[in-house]
Amino acid sequence: MLLDQINQPGDMKHLTTEELERLSQEIRTFLIEKLSVTGGHLSSNLGIVELTVALHYLYNSPVDKFIFDVGHQSYVHKILTGRKDRFDTLRKHNGMSGFIKRNESVHDVWEAGHSSTSLSAAMGMALARDLKGESNKVIAVIGDGAMTGGMALEAMNHIGHEKKDLMVVLNDNEMSIAPNVGAIHNYLSRIRSDKNYKKAKNELEGLLKKIPSIGGTLAKTAEKVKDSLKYMVVSGVLFEELGFNYIGPVDGHNLPLLLETFRQADKVKGPVLVHVITRKGKGYEPAELDSHTWHGASSYKIESGQMVKAVGHPMYTEIFGNALMELAEQDKRILAVTPAMPGGSGLLKFAAKFPDRMIDVGIAEEHAATMCAAVALEGLKPVFAVYSTFLQRAYDQTLHDICRMNLNVIFAIDRAGFVGADGETHHGVYDIAFLRHIPNIVIMMPKDENELRNMMYTAVQYNDGPIAIRYPRVNARGVEIDERMSALPIGKWETVIDSPSPKAAILAVGPMLELAEMAAEQLKREGIPTRVINARFIKPLDEAMLLQLAKENMPIVTVEEASERGGFGSAVLEFYSERNIWDMKVKNMGVPDYFVEHGSVKEQRAEVGLDAEHIAAEVRNLMPKHRQRA
Amino acid sequence: MLLDQINQPGDMKHLTTEELERLSQEIRTFLIEKLSVTGGHLSSNLGIVELTVALHYLYNSPVDKFIFDVGHQSYVHKILTGRKDRFDTLRKHNGMSGFIKRNESVHDVWEAGHSSTSLSAAMGMALARDLKGESNKVIAVIGDGAMTGGMALEAMNHIGHEKKDLMVVLNDNEMSIAPNVGAIHNYLSRIRSDKNYKKAKNELEGLLKKIPSIGGTLAKTAEKVKDSLKYMVVSGVLFEELGFNYIGPVDGHNLPLLLETFRQADKVKGPVLVHVITRKGKGYEPAELDSHTWHGASSYKIESGQMVKAVGHPMYTEIFGNALMELAEQDKRILAVTPAMPGGSGLLKFAAKFPDRMIDVGIAEEHAATMCAAVALEGLKPVFAVYSTFLQRAYDQTLHDICRMNLNVIFAIDRAGFVGADGETHHGVYDIAFLRHIPNIVIMMPKDENELRNMMYTAVQYNDGPIAIRYPRVNARGVEIDERMSALPIGKWETVIDSPSPKAAILAVGPMLELAEMAAEQLKREGIPTRVINARFIKPLDEAMLLQLAKENMPIVTVEEASERGGFGSAVLEFYSERNIWDMKVKNMGVPDYFVEHGSVKEQRAEVGLDAEHIAAEVRNLMPKHRQRA
Repeated sequence: MLLDQINQPGDMKHLTTEELERLSQEIRTFLIEKLSVTGGHLSSNLGIVELTVALHYLYNSPVDKFIFDVGHQSYVHKILTGRKDRFDTLRKHNGMSGFIKRNESVHDVWEAGHSSTSLSAAMGMALARDLKGESNKVIAVIGDGAMTGGMALEAMNHIGHEKKDLMVVLNDNEMSIAPNVGAIHNYLSRIRSDKNYKKAKNELEGLLKKIPSIGGTLAKTAEKVKDSLKYMVVSGVLFEELGFNYIGPVDGHNLPLLLETFRQADKVKGPVLVHVITRKGKGYEPAELDSHTWHGASSYKIESGQMVKAVGHPMYTEIFGNALMELAEQDKRILAVTPAMPGGSGLLKFAAKFPDRMIDVGIAEEHAATMCAAVALEGLKPVFAVYSTFLQRAYDQTLHDICRMNLNVIFAIDRAGFVGADGETHHGVYDIAFLRHIPNIVIMMPKDENELRNMMYTAVQYNDGPIAIRYPRVNARGVEIDERMSALPIGKWETVIDSPSPKAAILAVGPMLELAEMAAEQLKREGIPTRVINARFIKPLDEAMLLQLAKENMPIVTVEEASERGGFGSAVLEFYSERNIWDMKVKNMGVPDYFVEHGSVKEQRAEVGLDAEHIAAEVRNLMPKHRQRA
Repeated sequence: MLLDQINQPGDMKHLTTEELERLSQEIRTFLIEKLSVTGGHLSSNLGIVELTVALHYLYNSPVDKFIFDVGHQSYVHKILTGRKDRFDTLRKHNGMSGFIKRNESVHDVWEAGHSSTSLSAAMGMALARDLKGESNKVIAVIGDGAMTGGMALEAMNHIGHEKKDLMVVLNDNEMSIAPNVGAIHNYLSRIRSDKNYKKAKNELEGLLKKIPSIGGTLAKTAEKVKDSLKYMVVSGVLFEELGFNYIGPVDGHNLPLLLETFRQADKVKGPVLVHVITRKGKGYEPAELDSHTWHGASSYKIESGQMVKAVGHPMYTEIFGNALMELAEQDKRILAVTPAMPGGSGLLKFAAKFPDRMIDVGIAEEHAATMCAAVALEGLKPVFAVYSTFLQRAYDQTLHDICRMNLNVIFAIDRAGFVGADGETHHGVYDIAFLRHIPNIVIMMPKDENELRNMMYTAVQYNDGPIAIRYPRVNARGVEIDERMSALPIGKWETVIDSPSPKAAILAVGPMLELAEMAAEQLKREGIPTRVINARFIKPLDEAMLLQLAKENMPIVTVEEASERGGFGSAVLEFYSERNIWDMKVKNMGVPDYFVEHGSVKEQRAEVGLDAEHIAAEVRNLMPKHRQRA
């Protein structure tokens, strides 16, 4: 096995092209085997094998900087940089990350998780290099999807202007360019990247003159003339217009061609974009045939390609998608907007049923949010279905466009709370803190799937401004579903456990309620009867209930799977301070002030003390005998 | 005067082209006269007179939707829609806004303030229109600067894909296209917009064949061939590649040509981009000659063009710029990054002295932040100079890239607090709330200009992660400046007023300290000696001082010119709760939970009770005799 001999990129340098091809096949087999056990981003990594091998063969990491956009496609890079022994721990607690991590390897120079950051990173590294008078290469590898993110386009615009030496590898796995057109592209690309640039241009000019004789079809319709002219004359013209030298497209699974292309690209001064066509799942048929399902794979049987299905109640995501279908059938004002996550947001069935009312804008959270504002202005009911972590990208749009104009946009915030294996870049633990201070917005979180449905109904009925429902990336509780959805009174909480003389109250948000209930059971056995409240409105607070608790002088523990700083618990503290109520004991539990790494949601909750045991301990600690001063 | 007869767009419809031209001149004179008294965005509005007149003449607002990007160039629109009598109150408290405002007119359909939102708005309105089966026009007017914002590019990408009928008017006042090239563009534009599209294409093809004979220069260099080919064959190719029909460029001050162009554009199916070349300050020589100074003008003498200079101590912005120069002379690692605000951020002198270390990325806050992360990774010291309100655009990049990787990026957050005349879209009152919950960041605010300098020195010395300095849009206090800057101990506050037996403490942030000092003076006279603390670190808190206050059982009032929700005051509440300290009285003062409209900073502070009088009242209220329960 060649792979056995590769423990760092230097070990590849003596290999022949044929051996590099063999190595690529070995890597492919390695990935298919390892991920069949652990799961992970199989298809993206199968698609990028030759590309990664070529880059590590030609360039000198870590002196030359490899920047992987998002980073979920860095498994081959991990294999080639000494981490193949760690694949059994992929995406597990204390194991190897599924993304680039600087604490794993000197070859990991740029971390991400969110898309479209790589070009800004490349620009920054090239800028620093030039200021320091150094001469290393800077290479960003970005997918065609990530390229639509606004910040990538901002970076393109800036890079093209500054004309820094850097290489962008556009990993295009969409196969959107038909082979015949691609052949001309390959031709153009070869002559473009030729060192005799002027000669190339002359050839191009010659080619241009021949256009009318290429075929009669060209004259048939004006549209075709336009398109063909553009492609013939200036392939990759979009990138050229933005100041890049464009090379491509090239077949990303043809290793000799890749090597030749990069060698040519290397000679170009200024920013160069190499357009590489790859196939997601390449070399593993089940993944090639269904790249969507295989994007983030669970464990699977290699021969059949059968994935291990998760057991348990349906996920909140699915409940959301189904409820939205029901609501949309009755209310024609409803439309769904997703930034490139129709599947992840549970909207595939919705999209099939209401194709005109399902708007996928691509990776473009900012645009999505502001577009929703305009749709709402026109009297419709846009549902912005977005992961909590990606809503971070639309903070300003949420504030400046949606909330400032107080528009009826419904936020369906999925993956609120810990997300498990994706880790610190993907947790949805900040949305309460970054939304709660924005005027006009209502923020809810359901205790179970039935309440999620009622919250969606509530949101559709609500006409006084923006309203958000956040729900976690876990299985629902399996409760009975009401025949009809019904509206919740805005800002009213629910007491779910009480006793004649409770000694404390727990205000729990969303899935924390189940833990609070368990804590209360334990506390009851200890002689500390505890009231448990479903704090289903994070904003506005249930002021009547908070005043009642003050009247009872009740010690309070708040529990949320979200940042303790600026969170729901802080809102409770603020409320009592505002009302000049000084003698309350309010203890907040949430996610502390650091980034929690990958693992299972359960492990992540345990790490920060979000479990029944710790909740009970905090309540105990508020009992008079425990009264203390730090 | 024609203008006297125009009280709504309908009043223009019977005018001849000549009369429309005369009306334009009258509007220009009106603007120059009115703004000489009030100040305002003169040059942008002088540049857009004919364009706005043409649009209101041809289209039927408010049925047809006019969307002005940013909205600072909407004065002509305001004049034509019945608001010319309100220009004396422009940008004043309770007066007419300097931006689009829905509560001012039915013709104001989309509000903004931040740039680059208009295309998303247009897409949303077109989408809603089609879903509702309506047929109105949607027209977005966007500047060439705003077009570089990532969300505008995201929107372009989406609009081009969806092929909705809408018009984008690119108001290009950069004059970046030389007249000779422009002539060919005009030709191409006219034949393109001709109803006989196929014929136009044939003409284009014919033109293409003639290229080699146009001039010997074309063959001279490959670059020129490339550029010329692109411009000849597909003018506006960038937009065409993105799926738009491109028309232009046309002279934005030639009213007959504008009318003809829009009439042609109107016949195009799908998205169309009309590229209009305008001149900022058109018709008023001082503004034409110095469009930068005149972008946001103060009042001025019409004949001399002499602006009324503000009196008083220098602004914090200027102090920042000068201090950064001094620091950069001694430390070559320092570079400044601005998203299109070199002047507004006080960096013009810096840019002149260190051109290589001054990076203006255009309107691209997301890219700027992440680029800074990469620059910091390479060991340099990027100073991201950004207005608080625009940093909202880079919330995710600050969290996901800079703070998660704990990189040494210095945030110079200008315009923190109320901003005055720009009003609710521009206040810097959220940054504490949206930054404080992010792990790893240090947040400071100085009490005066000397402390600002020391904080900058502190930030440059600091090597443990991101550090932010926020400073207000007001004059500095005029204090003496230390000969040498010195570093502050991280997380240490400063007691500025004390007494042997204080009855309360005020923790004041930044410019609120001066108000707190005034309040303390008054309180002292009343027999309530009050300690005043300069809470210069918002994160981390001065825990030792907070514990000392607890030991003294001191009632506390916190004061910040920032959102009360999730702000500095909440951090103090959180601290005592975390430490199980239950008997403190902590009252928070800040900006309440609504959007504060335009006016002067003083008026805005008074509106929300951020003045010495209210601070004193809150302290009084905490005294035992005032103890009360709500």
